[in-house]
Amino acid sequence: MIQLEDVQKAKRVIKEVANRTPVMTSRTLDRQCGARIFLKCENFQRAGSFKFRGAFNALSTLNDRERSAGVVTHSSGNHAQALALAAAVSGVRAKIVMPRGSSPVKIEAVKGYGAEVVLCENSLASREETAGSLIASESLTLIHPYNDERVIAGAGTAAMELLEETGPLDLLLAPVGGGGLLSGTSTAAKGLYPEIKVWGVEPAGADDAYRSFHSGELIPQTDPQTIADGLRTSLGDKTFEIITERVDNIILAEENEIIRAMRFLWERMKIVVEPSGAVSLVPVLEGRLPSGKDIRVGVILSGGNVNLQAFFDTLK
Amino acid sequence: MIQLEDVQKAKRVIKEVANRTPVMTSRTLDRQCGARIFLKCENFQRAGSFKFRGAFNALSTLNDRERSAGVVTHSSGNHAQALALAAAVSGVRAKIVMPRGSSPVKIEAVKGYGAEVVLCENSLASREETAGSLIASESLTLIHPYNDERVIAGAGTAAMELLEETGPLDLLLAPVGGGGLLSGTSTAAKGLYPEIKVWGVEPAGADDAYRSFHSGELIPQTDPQTIADGLRTSLGDKTFEIITERVDNIILAEENEIIRAMRFLWERMKIVVEPSGAVSLVPVLEGRLPSGKDIRVGVILSGGNVNLQAFFDTLK
Repeated sequence: MIQLEDVQKAKRVIKEVANRTPVMTSRTLDRQCGARIFLKCENFQRAGSFKFRGAFNALSTLNDRERSAGVVTHSSGNHAQALALAAAVSGVRAKIVMPRGSSPVKIEAVKGYGAEVVLCENSLASREETAGSLIASESLTLIHPYNDERVIAGAGTAAMELLEETGPLDLLLAPVGGGGLLSGTSTAAKGLYPEIKVWGVEPAGADDAYRSFHSGELIPQTDPQTIADGLRTSLGDKTFEIITERVDNIILAEENEIIRAMRFLWERMKIVVEPSGAVSLVPVLEGRLPSGKDIRVGVILSGGNVNLQAFFDTLK
Repeated sequence: MIQLEDVQKAKRVIKEVANRTPVMTSRTLDRQCGARIFLKCENFQRAGSFKFRGAFNALSTLNDRERSAGVVTHSSGNHAQALALAAAVSGVRAKIVMPRGSSPVKIEAVKGYGAEVVLCENSLASREETAGSLIASESLTLIHPYNDERVIAGAGTAAMELLEETGPLDLLLAPVGGGGLLSGTSTAAKGLYPEIKVWGVEPAGADDAYRSFHSGELIPQTDPQTIADGLRTSLGDKTFEIITERVDNIILAEENEIIRAMRFLWERMKIVVEPSGAVSLVPVLEGRLPSGKDIRVGVILSGGNVNLQAFFDTLK
């Protein structure tokens, strides 16, 4: 299982290339919830989400043979863009397997970073099969979106930066989908401050991590129903192990609560955060923080990649 | 005419209460335009725009009699919210005259800051008459949205903060409507760095400042047609005088360019900026900067108050 030292090492690796994203605060928010809230804004990370941290860290560990052969992943989301950019920055060739149903905007973004897009059918089976045959035929290295210790350690650097800036916190909130961000966050936080509480927040419509955590058994997600498209995946064995060990609680967020949190961030904080990124603010806005006057709470806003076509169409 | 010292004094006055807004940069933007761009993000200012700076500075100059009587303004936009908040922070009573056609969201925001809203008819004549009768009957002090030296000096503090952070720039861009922001910006910038160029950017559909500047005569705006609702007003005599003296050029932005700039800020920079606030980015995105390799350009993004109801309705 990775330790604080792995996150510290990842932090040195990504230091020169990743953005040190800002920590935002809001008088309105603090007054409203009776706590001191620190928002770590990974929507301002390169390629629009925290995923760049883990992708770049994973690439940094490749040996020469792996580097010259190149890397592959399958993703229709933020990991695809992050790996494409990290590969370009690292001078490594990347192929990204994306389902034909992916939004044209996302496919263009991946190509824009210089990666090659390999289209497949929309099923998970087709994604894995297509990636698998590229690994076999071209000796590419798979960079998994979350169930990979190098990716988890990279993801943990966001929490580490936040805690460096704020000092000790009472509670740290992160969204949970595949569990990479929550695993890295809890490893960094508990390593630095053993007394801190770390909670994962998950959409009620994709509650596999909630059920796995509370039952003690890894239960895969089937038929997720949530606007938070980055959180529809299942925990992996590595992330489940870390979360079981280091996370204090996983709680659920309803769809209307996720949208309300996103709207607060856009309307009041003036920042564009995607639904998956706004999930971790739900306990703050909905009065589900632990009791205690002026407790200090960190919130990781994981990304800001939203399709704005519909909104801008209304302005034409 | 106000001088650098007036802006410096305003900066000391607002220091404890206004946000020192961040300066953002973007590798993508710099590469795209071949210059170094520094965005001063007044969308993160309290009440959502630079207007809080001038409103608070103006209130700080009131004598005891004026303070106890209270203040008044007429505005359906950002100055209304800014004065309401500044008055609350200053412990001064404020009445805001707003047209009946104002959006309910804006009326609620002004009330939310604790000001009293006085509704009037939708014409400018009705607004001025309603405010005038309150001034006469209740001895309220008018805080004009832009044609007021205290308001202009306060507005100039945004450029001053930017230049403190960046050091000398080749060019500084600011939107122009009534001209308060551009007047304060040029006063601060030319006072600190006499060699800097200062340009105003104005919607082509509300081009009174452009025509006034280039003809040398104050031409009022009639029938403005632009999405940039904060820039539909006419220059005042005070702002016209300063702009004539200290601004190097005023250029125009088309409606589709304004929307494109706004979309770039939302989609790539992940910040919510209103149309009036995005206007100053148009010359950067549309290739209208002065020639010169890697010139250093400051851009004032004036505010981020956008009605998001329609967008969030689509997510329900």
